[in-house]
Amino acid sequence: MPIKYHELDCVINGEYSIKCRRDGNEVFIPFFGFIQKYFEIYGKLSTEDGYERLEWEHSYSTVHRPREKYSPAGVFMSFEYYNVEERDRVRCISAMEGVPLSTQWTQNGHYYPIQISQFGLSHLSKYLTQPEAEVVTLEDGEDELESWILPDKRSQIELRKDPDLSTTLVEFTTSDSLKNPGISLPVDEKEDFVLSADIKFATDGSITVTIDTPGLQLFYIHYVLSSRLIFLDGHDIYYGLGDRRGQWMHITRDIAIDFDKGLALKYNKSKRTKMKLKVSRIKVVIVRGHGWLDNLTLSTTAHLDHFYNAANWLVLHQNDRGGWPISVQRKLIPKVLELEPGWYSAMAQGQAMSLLVRAYLRSHNTKYIQAAVDAMKLFEIPSMQGGVLAKYADRYDWYEEYPTTPSSFVLNGFIYSLFGLYDLKEVTSGEESKMAERLYNKGIESLKHMLLMFDNGSGTFYDLRHITLGIAPNRARWDYHTTHINQLLQLSVMDDSEIFKVTAQRWMDYMKGKRAKHN
Amino acid sequence: MPIKYHELDCVINGEYSIKCRRDGNEVFIPFFGFIQKYFEIYGKLSTEDGYERLEWEHSYSTVHRPREKYSPAGVFMSFEYYNVEERDRVRCISAMEGVPLSTQWTQNGHYYPIQISQFGLSHLSKYLTQPEAEVVTLEDGEDELESWILPDKRSQIELRKDPDLSTTLVEFTTSDSLKNPGISLPVDEKEDFVLSADIKFATDGSITVTIDTPGLQLFYIHYVLSSRLIFLDGHDIYYGLGDRRGQWMHITRDIAIDFDKGLALKYNKSKRTKMKLKVSRIKVVIVRGHGWLDNLTLSTTAHLDHFYNAANWLVLHQNDRGGWPISVQRKLIPKVLELEPGWYSAMAQGQAMSLLVRAYLRSHNTKYIQAAVDAMKLFEIPSMQGGVLAKYADRYDWYEEYPTTPSSFVLNGFIYSLFGLYDLKEVTSGEESKMAERLYNKGIESLKHMLLMFDNGSGTFYDLRHITLGIAPNRARWDYHTTHINQLLQLSVMDDSEIFKVTAQRWMDYMKGKRAKHN
Repeated sequence: MPIKYHELDCVINGEYSIKCRRDGNEVFIPFFGFIQKYFEIYGKLSTEDGYERLEWEHSYSTVHRPREKYSPAGVFMSFEYYNVEERDRVRCISAMEGVPLSTQWTQNGHYYPIQISQFGLSHLSKYLTQPEAEVVTLEDGEDELESWILPDKRSQIELRKDPDLSTTLVEFTTSDSLKNPGISLPVDEKEDFVLSADIKFATDGSITVTIDTPGLQLFYIHYVLSSRLIFLDGHDIYYGLGDRRGQWMHITRDIAIDFDKGLALKYNKSKRTKMKLKVSRIKVVIVRGHGWLDNLTLSTTAHLDHFYNAANWLVLHQNDRGGWPISVQRKLIPKVLELEPGWYSAMAQGQAMSLLVRAYLRSHNTKYIQAAVDAMKLFEIPSMQGGVLAKYADRYDWYEEYPTTPSSFVLNGFIYSLFGLYDLKEVTSGEESKMAERLYNKGIESLKHMLLMFDNGSGTFYDLRHITLGIAPNRARWDYHTTHINQLLQLSVMDDSEIFKVTAQRWMDYMKGKRAKHN
Repeated sequence: MPIKYHELDCVINGEYSIKCRRDGNEVFIPFFGFIQKYFEIYGKLSTEDGYERLEWEHSYSTVHRPREKYSPAGVFMSFEYYNVEERDRVRCISAMEGVPLSTQWTQNGHYYPIQISQFGLSHLSKYLTQPEAEVVTLEDGEDELESWILPDKRSQIELRKDPDLSTTLVEFTTSDSLKNPGISLPVDEKEDFVLSADIKFATDGSITVTIDTPGLQLFYIHYVLSSRLIFLDGHDIYYGLGDRRGQWMHITRDIAIDFDKGLALKYNKSKRTKMKLKVSRIKVVIVRGHGWLDNLTLSTTAHLDHFYNAANWLVLHQNDRGGWPISVQRKLIPKVLELEPGWYSAMAQGQAMSLLVRAYLRSHNTKYIQAAVDAMKLFEIPSMQGGVLAKYADRYDWYEEYPTTPSSFVLNGFIYSLFGLYDLKEVTSGEESKMAERLYNKGIESLKHMLLMFDNGSGTFYDLRHITLGIAPNRARWDYHTTHINQLLQLSVMDDSEIFKVTAQRWMDYMKGKRAKHN
């Protein structure tokens, strides 16, 4: 039943006043009108399970406890929860190399080695933690081809024994024109939307999937021999496979993602949701031109393919300094802390190491471990000389996510770089292992001396710009704060010194509004 | 008129729930029952000027803007607001030396050089900022003595010309027994309660004041030739003047303070207030024994006497290392950061310098400046060797308020030590000035590099124990936070680098609940 009370002014720090409610000796302060903003508290009215309440959350993100044992071959932290390709700042997954293109810091987009490594690590982690994928084989060249439909008499499709590959392939011949309905295979798949195929074109050509949406709108995604990344024209989405005529290509496409990124060129997320623009069914697969096809499948997921696409990209694009130069300008603080295009990131180098080490341990292909070893070189080169090595107080080595001058000392990027060095020292031997171990040990020593500089008594700092520049500190938002915690918990599995466990626990308490004591 | 609304549960961080009030889409949270404690906010219901409101205060202490010009001869910061002797942790003002005895960290009490210096600096600052004191001369030996009352025929009082002092004195002769009513002078003073006198005893003897309280209870304060500090027996309070028979003594006593400290031996503050145990009137002054008296006065204040008592104590008790060893054990963190009796404090050394420099500039007595110069020696001796010099990262000199190992880096004590060095470098010349300047400049350089390590984005840290020990940070409570601000504002008068002004402003904003941005 209703209760009676009176309105009362509350004068805030003698500066302004808000309307509160008084009942006896208690005064009630408005949550949505004041508390929420004044203290940055998160709250929502909830009536789940019929019981109405206000859910007060001091912070908004989640801590992931690491596994009890860590393996350089295994899941990376809790990256199985990452969905890199779904992020808005991923323009699309390139059909040429199967890696994401980032639009962070530039609308043109750039291949960001950190994002590519995280894409690969997340898919490996999903592969290792999720149930096995369902695979529907659409065509493996082993049976009759009667399900295929030819558009005209001049087109043909037949089985061919391939001597080199010692398997039977499907050879298709039809016009390469996109006006041509093409040689089509009815599919009608409602669940498994990841398409894989081995395909080679002798002429110009393309492979197309037709898509239904919940609103029964028909769309086409065309994978064409072109170097144009992505393009939308009405209901037609085009992805460029590159100019790879005459080469065997193993393509793996998440059709749902490709569709969403294509539509994103025209409609923002809320519009896409409102218009129900998502894949409800893959109706048909179509090939055009003259070429050969094998192992055409649709599956729930194809994590390992994505994982190797990322690893291969790193091997292919690593330069002679062992680095993956980042091609955009980065302004940490405009005019004060800026990095010109071509900078390297210790975080990129380290995340790449973690990915490459895993690719090596799965494939035993030494190209991966060699790339990981080469990636260490930049850790010994000072930021001023284009490397990633900073020193705190001329004394503590710190590997910089953003090698600015003066140094910025970003915590999470530094720890990711240590994880890379850890993975590397565990799997290498001899000189390479010694170098990785030396770099790792120096980094850990610095971390143990400097970790508490990031503890602000009620949360953490993202970096140490306040100390190096004498300016206001840069508090970490809660998602970075939880990244810090997740990293400390992971470190405490690798290194049993108290400081990581104890600090992680206190930092978790901060998320519930607890604070360090005052004197 | 009353408004209607409903009760609602608010679930706090999924851990527990509190009762709130809902009105439409707004939820009201109880201030006294929750907000106050959860966020450490200060608030009280006020109805001043008839208008009822809740006064919400994020912090509780006040910033004092410094004067536009700073002088080593002038007011020290805003110490005119300090009332050292009134603090509970001051047992009393010794009648032997006129300085406070501290009971901080030990019930036995000890002479704490920081407290003594602050006592002196506060009285000088009051002297320089307050209206001139009223002085009532009770006896100067210039006129007839008919106001004095003799207890018996054997007692006598007469004027005597003193060849050495070339002034006339009052010689008194009567039994030195405290049972003797003594030779008494009616006073009946209701306002000016600070007693001063020059007095010398040939025999045992005493000087007594009789006191009225608002409840018309009669009390006696006896200043006796004894080394017992303070003693209460019923309505008799005893202060020991030391065994100074045959010596001229200049005594200056704040009777109201002496009375309160005497009663404090038996009754706590609230009891004293409840029983109205304070001085409402000084009725009579009494002398006993055989001796000489001159310049007997009652005045509103006698700040300069207190100031010189403190300065003289420092000169007399400085040891051959130029220090004032502190005779109590100090446990910053029990078993981890402890100092054994005999430790030195850079803050004590620095505050003493500020006081001694002022005493020198007023008196031109070089004993004061010499003591201040000698006080610098310990700034060059590392904490481990019993000095006060710490180094941060083997690189930045820091003068320790508490020279623990590992270092604690207490901010406010360090800055006070810099103020002492600043005063000294301003008034000395030659080698002494060079040394003070070198120490000051090194300290300021360290401060500029390390100041922001104390900024936690919503307040400040008291010290850097979290960094040196890897433990939870020690947040400064608001009164220390405002001390930090007052010190930065003072520094920005001495040194015009931006960092002091800008940081002070941000730290003031923190007191209103503003915080540094998060990323």
